[in-house]
Amino acid sequence: MATTDTQGYTENKKPLLDRLRRIEGQVRGLGRMVEEDRYCIDVLTQISTVQDALDKVALGLVDEHARHCVIGGKKGEQEQRTAELMGAISRLVRRG
Amino acid sequence: MATTDTQGYTENKKPLLDRLRRIEGQVRGLGRMVEEDRYCIDVLTQISTVQDALDKVALGLVDEHARHCVIGGKKGEQEQRTAELMGAISRLVRRG
Amino acid sequence: MATTDTQGYTENKKPLLDRLRRIEGQVRGLGRMVEEDRYCIDVLTQISTVQDALDKVALGLVDEHARHCVIGGKKGEQEQRTAELMGAISRLVRRG
Amino acid sequence: MATTDTQGYTENKKPLLDRLRRIEGQVRGLGRMVEEDRYCIDVLTQISTVQDALDKVALGLVDEHARHCVIGGKKGEQEQRTAELMGAISRLVRRG
Repeated sequence: MATTDTQGYTENKKPLLDRLRRIEGQVRGLGRMVEEDRYCIDVLTQISTVQDALDKVALGLVDEHARHCVIGGKKGEQEQRTAELMGAISRLVRRG
Repeated sequence: MATTDTQGYTENKKPLLDRLRRIEGQVRGLGRMVEEDRYCIDVLTQISTVQDALDKVALGLVDEHARHCVIGGKKGEQEQRTAELMGAISRLVRRG
Repeated sequence: MATTDTQGYTENKKPLLDRLRRIEGQVRGLGRMVEEDRYCIDVLTQISTVQDALDKVALGLVDEHARHCVIGGKKGEQEQRTAELMGAISRLVRRG
Repeated sequence: MATTDTQGYTENKKPLLDRLRRIEGQVRGLGRMVEEDRYCIDVLTQISTVQDALDKVALGLVDEHARHCVIGGKKGEQEQRTAELMGAISRLVRRG
């Protein structure tokens, strides 16, 4: 797995970090709901909200990776990067 | 949405809170990966790991809610609680 | 896996069979789209439509099974049936 | 939505059509299970099998579309095609 200085998301790093921080807060909120013995269904609804937020982050990363690192990548790297990206999409669709 | 003193998960509150704290840490780790410009695909893999962990928590809550609050619930409440639970399952399956 | 004379869905068998026949037709339609070299994205959109229809059928079966076979089941069977149902829900959520 | 003479999947049309025909047969099998009042959980398990098969077909189409129509596409078309593909991936991940 390569590490380079810039990534597909580097340009949008600030809003991406904001979103992740909000999701972290939502997960912390889940813990509080459980500590307060909140109704199971309300906890489940909140988990779905977090999953949606994570889906959106993931789809944004797929989009930026496709544009910058695959399509905009060097010819010799496109094959392997497409394969990696397909693996990631497959994990998102089929969940593990 | 009712709030009662005990919930289906109350007996397993401690391990549930531990899991949620671990997930919160994983989301914080996602933020760190982005700050360090880690490879997009590695970030996506980690998002899938978090979503799997949240799925497991959600399925555990569905299980305990079904056992304690629906099957073990009062006759007059079972109808409405099944409807609520189906709504929650539907959101998990179809993601919002 | 037990086979009994009536199932949770038996009362709604006719509309359920209609839905499944419609889904079968949609899958046959997918084959026609491929034979006619239709645009990949249109084929993908149609696959999502079929999956949504299958999700709806599955959620309907879960609902009827929960009501008739688990909640309405004999005390001695509820434990095992809940476990079976949770397995099925888990497969729907996490897809295999 | 463009229709062209060849698509990303055109080279693999034969195995793709075979898979779709097998899925069509599986959906027909679902109808038979319901007609024979088979156990709800067995019907649900079979629905999960069909969903997995459809996921695999969809991921194959995404892969071939990405390689042939997006990466291998004309410069002027890549932007729009990536957007279309992201829409399709988003529908697969979030199910509608």
